[in-house]
Amino acid sequence: MNECKKSHHDEKFKADLILRLNKIEGQIRGLKRMIEADTYCDDILNQITSVRAALASVQEKLLLAHMQSCVLQQIKDGEDKVIVELAETIKRMLK
Amino acid sequence: MNECKKSHHDEKFKADLILRLNKIEGQIRGLKRMIEADTYCDDILNQITSVRAALASVQEKLLLAHMQSCVLQQIKDGEDKVIVELAETIKRMLK
Amino acid sequence: MNECKKSHHDEKFKADLILRLNKIEGQIRGLKRMIEADTYCDDILNQITSVRAALASVQEKLLLAHMQSCVLQQIKDGEDKVIVELAETIKRMLK
Amino acid sequence: MNECKKSHHDEKFKADLILRLNKIEGQIRGLKRMIEADTYCDDILNQITSVRAALASVQEKLLLAHMQSCVLQQIKDGEDKVIVELAETIKRMLK
Repeated sequence: MNECKKSHHDEKFKADLILRLNKIEGQIRGLKRMIEADTYCDDILNQITSVRAALASVQEKLLLAHMQSCVLQQIKDGEDKVIVELAETIKRMLK
Repeated sequence: MNECKKSHHDEKFKADLILRLNKIEGQIRGLKRMIEADTYCDDILNQITSVRAALASVQEKLLLAHMQSCVLQQIKDGEDKVIVELAETIKRMLK
Repeated sequence: MNECKKSHHDEKFKADLILRLNKIEGQIRGLKRMIEADTYCDDILNQITSVRAALASVQEKLLLAHMQSCVLQQIKDGEDKVIVELAETIKRMLK
Repeated sequence: MNECKKSHHDEKFKADLILRLNKIEGQIRGLKRMIEADTYCDDILNQITSVRAALASVQEKLLLAHMQSCVLQQIKDGEDKVIVELAETIKRMLK
Protein backbone atom coordinates (compact mmCIF):
# COMPACT_ATOMS: atom_id res chain seq x y z
CA MET A 1 0.00 0.00 0.00
CA ASN A 2 1.20 3.46 -0.79
CA GLU A 3 1.64 5.10 2.59
CA CYS A 4 2.17 8.46 0.98
CA LYS A 5 -1.41 8.64 -0.24
CA LYS A 6 -2.00 10.41 3.05
CA SER A 7 -0.25 13.68 3.73
CA HIS A 8 2.28 13.80 6.55
CA HIS A 9 2.69 17.44 7.29
CA ASP A 10 3.56 18.42 10.82
CA GLU A 11 0.99 19.97 13.11
CA LYS A 12 2.50 23.45 12.89
CA PHE A 13 2.24 23.49 9.09
CA LYS A 14 -1.35 22.23 9.18
CA ALA A 15 -2.28 24.78 11.87
CA ASP A 16 -0.91 27.57 9.68
CA LEU A 17 -2.98 26.43 6.68
CA ILE A 18 -6.14 26.12 8.83
CA LEU A 19 -5.56 29.62 10.20
CA ARG A 20 -5.26 31.00 6.68
CA LEU A 21 -8.38 29.14 5.53
CA ASN A 22 -10.29 30.45 8.57
CA LYS A 23 -9.38 33.97 7.54
CA ILE A 24 -10.42 33.28 3.93
CA GLU A 25 -13.74 31.83 5.15
CA GLY A 26 -14.34 35.04 7.09
CA GLN A 27 -13.53 37.08 3.99
CA ILE A 28 -16.04 35.06 1.93
CA ARG A 29 -18.72 35.81 4.53
CA GLY A 30 -17.66 39.45 4.38
CA LEU A 31 -18.14 39.43 0.59
CA LYS A 32 -21.70 38.15 1.03
CA ARG A 33 -22.46 40.96 3.48
CA MET A 34 -20.99 43.50 1.04
CA ILE A 35 -23.23 42.26 -1.77
CA GLU A 36 -26.30 42.26 0.46
CA ALA A 37 -25.51 45.82 1.56
CA ASP A 38 -25.10 47.01 -2.07
CA THR A 39 -21.48 47.98 -1.42
CA TYR A 40 -19.89 49.75 -4.37
CA CYS A 41 -18.75 47.06 -6.85
CA ASP A 42 -15.24 48.41 -7.22
CA ASP A 43 -14.62 47.81 -3.50
CA ILE A 44 -16.01 44.28 -3.75
CA LEU A 45 -13.86 43.55 -6.81
CA ASN A 46 -10.71 44.61 -4.98
CA GLN A 47 -11.69 42.56 -1.95
CA ILE A 48 -12.16 39.48 -4.19
CA THR A 49 -8.67 40.11 -5.60
CA SER A 50 -7.32 39.94 -2.02
CA VAL A 51 -9.14 36.70 -1.25
CA ARG A 52 -7.91 35.16 -4.50
CA ALA A 53 -4.31 36.05 -3.61
CA ALA A 54 -4.76 34.55 -0.13
CA LEU A 55 -6.12 31.32 -1.59
CA ALA A 56 -3.34 31.16 -4.18
CA SER A 57 -0.83 31.57 -1.36
CA VAL A 58 -2.32 28.62 0.57
CA GLN A 59 -2.13 26.52 -2.59
CA GLU A 60 1.46 27.51 -3.29
CA LYS A 61 2.54 26.61 0.26
CA LEU A 62 0.86 23.24 0.02
CA LEU A 63 2.32 22.55 -3.43
CA LEU A 64 5.88 23.29 -2.32
CA ALA A 65 5.49 21.15 0.82
CA HIS A 66 3.96 18.33 -1.24
CA MET A 67 6.82 18.38 -3.74
CA GLN A 68 9.50 18.34 -1.08
CA SER A 69 7.99 15.54 0.93
CA CYS A 70 5.56 13.22 -0.77
CA VAL A 71 6.67 13.62 -4.39
CA LEU A 72 10.32 13.22 -3.52
CA GLN A 73 9.62 10.18 -1.35
CA GLN A 74 7.42 8.44 -3.90
CA ILE A 75 10.05 8.82 -6.63
CA LYS A 76 12.68 7.36 -4.31
CA ASP A 77 10.26 4.48 -3.68
CA GLY A 78 10.04 3.86 -7.42
CA GLU A 79 6.56 5.34 -7.79
CA ASP A 80 7.56 7.36 -10.87
CA LYS A 81 4.01 8.02 -11.93
CA VAL A 82 3.73 10.63 -9.15
CA ILE A 83 5.57 13.02 -11.49
CA VAL A 84 2.80 12.64 -14.08
CA GLU A 85 0.21 13.25 -11.36
CA LEU A 86 2.10 16.36 -10.22
CA ALA A 87 2.41 17.61 -13.81
CA GLU A 88 -1.36 17.26 -14.29
CA THR A 89 -2.03 19.15 -11.04
CA ILE A 90 0.30 22.00 -12.01
CA LYS A 91 -1.26 22.14 -15.49
CA ARG A 92 -4.65 22.72 -13.85
CA MET A 93 -3.18 25.37 -11.56
CA LEU A 94 -1.65 27.24 -14.50
CA LYS A 95 -4.95 27.57 -16.36
CA MET B 1 -23.25 63.03 -4.05
CA ASN B 2 -22.32 60.26 -6.37
CA GLU B 3 -25.34 57.94 -6.28
CA CYS B 4 -23.42 55.28 -8.12
CA LYS B 5 -21.07 54.73 -5.20
CA LYS B 6 -23.60 52.11 -4.19
CA SER B 7 -24.19 49.15 -6.48
CA HIS B 8 -27.59 48.82 -8.09
CA HIS B 9 -27.77 45.23 -9.20
CA ASP B 10 -31.13 43.56 -9.29
CA GLU B 11 -32.14 41.02 -6.67
CA LYS B 12 -31.77 38.06 -9.03
CA PHE B 13 -28.17 38.95 -9.86
CA LYS B 14 -27.32 39.45 -6.19
CA ALA B 15 -29.01 36.16 -5.23
CA ASP B 16 -26.93 34.33 -7.82
CA LEU B 17 -23.68 35.80 -6.43
CA ILE B 18 -24.68 34.97 -2.84
CA LEU B 19 -25.49 31.39 -3.91
CA ARG B 20 -22.08 31.06 -5.51
CA LEU B 21 -20.34 32.51 -2.46
CA ASN B 22 -22.28 30.14 -0.18
CA LYS B 23 -20.97 27.24 -2.22
CA ILE B 24 -17.42 28.63 -2.07
CA GLU B 25 -17.72 29.08 1.71
CA GLY B 26 -18.72 25.40 1.98
CA GLN B 27 -15.73 24.44 -0.16
CA ILE B 28 -13.38 26.40 2.11
CA ARG B 29 -14.77 24.53 5.12
CA GLY B 30 -14.29 21.30 3.15
CA LEU B 31 -10.63 22.22 2.56
CA LYS B 32 -10.10 22.65 6.30
CA ARG B 33 -11.59 19.22 6.97
CA MET B 34 -9.35 17.71 4.28
CA ILE B 35 -6.24 19.20 5.90
CA GLU B 36 -7.30 18.05 9.36
CA ALA B 37 -7.90 14.52 8.02
CA ASP B 38 -4.45 14.43 6.32
CA THR B 39 -6.06 14.00 2.92
CA TYR B 40 -3.52 13.38 0.16
CA CYS B 41 -2.11 16.79 -0.88
CA ASP B 42 -2.67 16.26 -4.58
CA ASP B 43 -6.41 15.99 -3.98
CA ILE B 44 -6.40 19.14 -1.85
CA LEU B 45 -4.40 21.03 -4.50
CA ASN B 46 -6.93 20.13 -7.19
CA GLN B 47 -9.80 21.11 -4.91
CA ILE B 48 -8.17 24.52 -4.31
CA THR B 49 -7.88 24.94 -8.10
CA SER B 50 -11.67 24.43 -8.31
CA VAL B 51 -12.39 26.97 -5.58
CA ARG B 52 -10.07 29.50 -7.23
CA ALA B 53 -11.91 29.08 -10.52
CA ALA B 54 -15.26 29.52 -8.76
CA LEU B 55 -14.07 32.71 -7.07
CA ALA B 56 -12.62 34.06 -10.33
CA SER B 57 -15.97 33.41 -11.96
CA VAL B 58 -17.82 35.44 -9.29
CA GLN B 59 -15.36 38.28 -9.81
CA GLU B 60 -15.71 38.18 -13.58
CA LYS B 61 -19.50 38.31 -13.37
CA LEU B 62 -19.37 41.26 -11.00
CA LEU B 63 -16.79 43.08 -13.13
CA LEU B 64 -18.84 42.77 -16.31
CA ALA B 65 -22.02 43.91 -14.53
CA HIS B 66 -20.14 46.82 -12.95
CA MET B 67 -18.76 47.96 -16.30
CA GLN B 68 -22.10 47.81 -18.04
CA SER B 69 -24.01 49.66 -15.34
CA CYS B 70 -22.05 51.84 -12.99
CA VAL B 71 -18.99 52.61 -15.11
CA LEU B 72 -21.08 53.44 -18.15
CA GLN B 73 -23.41 55.65 -16.10
CA GLN B 74 -20.65 57.53 -14.34
CA ILE B 75 -18.93 58.36 -17.63
CA LYS B 76 -22.22 59.63 -19.03
CA ASP B 77 -22.54 61.76 -15.88
CA GLY B 78 -19.13 63.28 -16.56
CA GLU B 79 -17.35 61.31 -13.83
CA ASP B 80 -14.46 60.37 -16.13
CA LYS B 81 -12.19 59.36 -13.31
CA VAL B 82 -14.18 56.13 -12.95
CA ILE B 83 -12.17 54.80 -15.92
CA VAL B 84 -8.94 55.31 -13.99
CA GLU B 85 -10.47 53.55 -10.98
CA LEU B 86 -11.58 50.66 -13.22
CA ALA B 87 -8.13 50.46 -14.83
CA GLU B 88 -6.51 50.21 -11.38
CA THR B 89 -8.93 47.46 -10.34
CA ILE B 90 -8.29 45.45 -13.50
CA LYS B 91 -4.53 45.92 -13.07
CA ARG B 92 -4.80 44.31 -9.62
CA MET B 93 -6.93 41.49 -11.05
CA LEU B 94 -4.35 40.75 -13.75
CA LYS B 95 -1.49 40.29 -11.29
CA MET C 1 -17.91 56.38 -39.44
CA ASN C 2 -16.38 55.62 -36.11
CA GLU C 3 -13.12 57.55 -36.12
CA CYS C 4 -12.02 55.80 -32.97
CA LYS C 5 -11.69 52.49 -34.77
CA LYS C 6 -8.12 53.55 -35.33
CA SER C 7 -5.88 54.10 -32.33
CA HIS C 8 -4.65 57.63 -31.66
CA HIS C 9 -1.72 57.17 -29.36
CA ASP C 10 1.05 59.70 -29.53
CA GLU C 11 4.37 58.86 -31.16
CA LYS C 12 6.22 58.62 -27.85
CA PHE C 13 3.80 55.99 -26.51
CA LYS C 14 3.99 53.99 -29.74
CA ALA C 15 7.79 54.18 -29.79
CA ASP C 16 7.91 52.81 -26.24
CA LEU C 17 5.69 49.85 -27.19
CA ILE C 18 7.75 49.12 -30.31
CA LEU C 19 10.94 49.22 -28.23
CA ARG C 20 9.47 46.73 -25.77
CA LEU C 21 8.29 44.46 -28.59
CA ASN C 22 11.73 44.62 -30.22
CA LYS C 23 13.24 43.42 -26.96
CA ILE C 24 10.65 40.63 -26.70
CA GLU C 25 11.36 39.59 -30.30
CA GLY C 26 15.05 39.34 -29.42
CA GLN C 27 14.18 37.23 -26.37
CA ILE C 28 12.10 34.85 -28.51
CA ARG C 29 15.08 34.41 -30.84
CA GLY C 30 17.22 33.81 -27.75
CA LEU C 31 14.82 31.09 -26.62
CA LYS C 32 15.19 29.31 -29.96
CA ARG C 33 18.97 29.40 -29.64
CA MET C 34 18.72 28.02 -26.10
CA ILE C 35 16.60 25.10 -27.29
CA GLU C 36 18.93 24.38 -30.19
CA ALA C 37 21.92 24.45 -27.83
CA ASP C 38 20.22 22.02 -25.39
CA THR C 39 20.34 24.61 -22.63
CA TYR C 40 19.16 23.24 -19.29
CA CYS C 41 15.33 23.34 -19.28
CA ASP C 42 15.05 25.10 -15.94
CA ASP C 43 16.93 28.10 -17.34
CA ILE C 44 14.70 28.17 -20.42
CA LEU C 45 11.57 27.94 -18.27
CA ASN C 46 12.65 30.94 -16.20
CA GLN C 47 13.51 32.89 -19.34
CA ILE C 48 10.02 32.18 -20.75
CA THR C 49 8.56 33.48 -17.47
CA SER C 50 10.45 36.75 -18.07
CA VAL C 51 9.21 37.07 -21.64
CA ARG C 52 5.64 36.36 -20.53
CA ALA C 53 5.88 39.12 -17.92
CA ALA C 54 7.27 41.54 -20.53
CA LEU C 55 4.44 40.75 -22.93
CA ALA C 56 1.84 41.08 -20.16
CA SER C 57 3.29 44.47 -19.35
CA VAL C 58 2.94 45.67 -22.97
CA GLN C 59 -0.66 44.49 -22.94
CA GLU C 60 -1.42 46.21 -19.64
CA LYS C 61 0.02 49.51 -20.88
CA LEU C 62 -2.01 49.33 -24.05
CA LEU C 63 -5.19 48.37 -22.17
CA LEU C 64 -4.92 51.30 -19.77
CA ALA C 65 -4.21 53.75 -22.61
CA HIS C 66 -7.11 52.32 -24.63
CA MET C 67 -9.53 52.69 -21.72
CA GLN C 68 -8.54 56.27 -21.00
CA SER C 69 -8.71 57.44 -24.60
CA CYS C 70 -10.80 55.44 -27.00
CA VAL C 71 -13.22 53.77 -24.60
CA LEU C 72 -13.94 57.00 -22.75
CA GLN C 73 -14.41 58.91 -26.02
CA GLN C 74 -16.70 56.34 -27.58
CA ILE C 75 -18.96 56.30 -24.53
CA LYS C 76 -19.16 60.09 -24.62
CA ASP C 77 -20.08 59.78 -28.33
CA GLY C 78 -22.95 57.46 -27.40
CA GLU C 79 -21.19 54.31 -28.62
CA ASP C 80 -22.12 52.37 -25.47
CA LYS C 81 -21.39 49.01 -27.00
CA VAL C 82 -17.66 49.71 -26.61
CA ILE C 83 -18.06 48.70 -22.94
CA VAL C 84 -19.28 45.25 -24.02
CA GLU C 85 -16.34 44.98 -26.42
CA LEU C 86 -13.94 45.97 -23.61
CA ALA C 87 -15.56 43.49 -21.22
CA GLU C 88 -15.06 40.68 -23.77
CA THR C 89 -11.42 41.66 -24.27
CA ILE C 90 -10.74 41.71 -20.53
CA LYS C 91 -12.51 38.36 -20.13
CA ARG C 92 -10.10 36.84 -22.64
CA MET C 93 -7.15 38.46 -20.87
CA LEU C 94 -8.22 37.00 -17.51
CA LYS C 95 -8.31 33.42 -18.78
CA MET D 1 29.49 16.55 -13.14
CA ASN D 2 25.78 16.70 -13.44
CA GLU D 3 25.07 15.49 -16.96
CA CYS D 4 21.47 16.54 -16.66
CA LYS D 5 22.39 20.20 -16.58
CA LYS D 6 21.93 19.99 -20.32
CA SER D 7 18.53 19.11 -21.71
CA HIS D 8 18.17 15.84 -23.58
CA HIS D 9 14.98 16.20 -25.52
CA ASP D 10 14.69 14.38 -28.79
CA GLU D 11 14.93 16.20 -32.09
CA LYS D 12 11.22 15.93 -32.81
CA PHE D 13 10.30 17.62 -29.53
CA LYS D 14 12.84 20.38 -30.08
CA ALA D 15 11.67 20.92 -33.67
CA ASP D 16 8.09 21.33 -32.42
CA LEU D 17 9.14 23.99 -29.88
CA ILE D 18 11.22 25.85 -32.49
CA LEU D 19 8.27 25.80 -34.88
CA ARG D 20 6.02 27.28 -32.19
CA LEU D 21 8.58 29.94 -31.30
CA ASN D 22 8.99 30.84 -34.98
CA LYS D 23 5.25 31.41 -35.14
CA ILE D 24 5.35 33.51 -31.97
CA GLU D 25 8.25 35.56 -33.36
CA GLY D 26 6.16 36.26 -36.47
CA GLN D 27 3.25 37.31 -34.26
CA ILE D 28 5.47 39.73 -32.33
CA ARG D 29 6.55 41.31 -35.62
CA GLY D 30 2.88 41.47 -36.58
CA LEU D 31 2.12 43.32 -33.35
CA LYS D 32 4.76 45.94 -34.18
CA ARG D 33 3.22 46.47 -37.61
CA MET D 34 -0.22 46.82 -36.02
CA ILE D 35 1.03 49.50 -33.64
CA GLU D 36 2.82 51.37 -36.42
CA ALA D 37 -0.35 51.26 -38.55
CA ASP D 38 -2.49 52.62 -35.66
CA THR D 39 -4.61 49.48 -35.66
CA TYR D 40 -7.56 49.70 -33.29
CA CYS D 41 -6.28 48.86 -29.77
CA ASP D 42 -8.95 46.30 -29.04
CA ASP D 43 -7.72 44.16 -31.96
CA ILE D 44 -4.13 44.47 -30.77
CA LEU D 45 -5.12 43.54 -27.21
CA ASN D 46 -6.83 40.37 -28.42
CA GLN D 47 -3.85 39.50 -30.58
CA ILE D 48 -1.54 39.88 -27.57
CA THR D 49 -3.84 37.52 -25.63
CA SER D 50 -3.30 34.93 -28.39
CA VAL D 51 0.47 35.32 -28.33
CA ARG D 52 0.50 35.04 -24.53
CA ALA D 53 -1.48 31.79 -24.73
CA ALA D 54 0.93 30.43 -27.37
CA LEU D 55 3.93 31.27 -25.20
CA ALA D 56 2.29 29.76 -22.11
CA SER D 57 1.69 26.60 -24.11
CA VAL D 58 5.36 26.33 -25.10
CA GLN D 59 6.32 26.77 -21.46
CA GLU D 60 3.85 24.15 -20.27
CA LYS D 61 5.12 21.60 -22.80
CA LEU D 62 8.70 22.23 -21.76
CA LEU D 63 7.84 22.05 -18.06
CA LEU D 64 6.09 18.70 -18.39
CA ALA D 65 8.93 17.25 -20.46
CA HIS D 66 11.49 18.58 -17.97
CA MET D 67 9.66 17.03 -15.02
CA GLN D 68 9.34 13.64 -16.66
CA SER D 69 12.95 13.42 -17.79
CA CYS D 70 15.49 15.55 -16.02
CA VAL D 71 13.75 16.06 -12.67
CA LEU D 72 12.90 12.39 -12.34
CA GLN D 73 16.43 11.33 -13.30
CA GLN D 74 18.15 13.76 -10.95
CA ILE D 75 16.07 12.58 -7.99
CA LYS D 76 16.94 8.97 -8.82
CA ASP D 77 20.59 10.06 -8.91
CA GLY D 78 20.25 11.48 -5.41
CA GLU D 79 20.19 15.12 -6.54
CA ASP D 80 17.23 15.95 -4.32
CA LYS D 81 17.77 19.67 -4.56
CA VAL D 82 16.31 19.60 -8.08
CA ILE D 83 12.87 19.54 -6.42
CA VAL D 84 13.60 22.86 -4.70
CA GLU D 85 14.80 24.29 -8.02
CA LEU D 86 11.61 23.06 -9.72
CA ALA D 87 9.47 24.49 -6.93
CA GLU D 88 11.12 27.91 -7.36
CA THR D 89 10.57 27.80 -11.13
CA ILE D 90 6.90 26.90 -10.74
CA LYS D 91 6.48 29.64 -8.11
CA ARG D 92 7.73 32.19 -10.66
CA MET D 93 5.42 30.75 -13.31
CA LEU D 94 2.40 31.06 -11.01
CA LYS D 95 2.95 34.77 -10.33
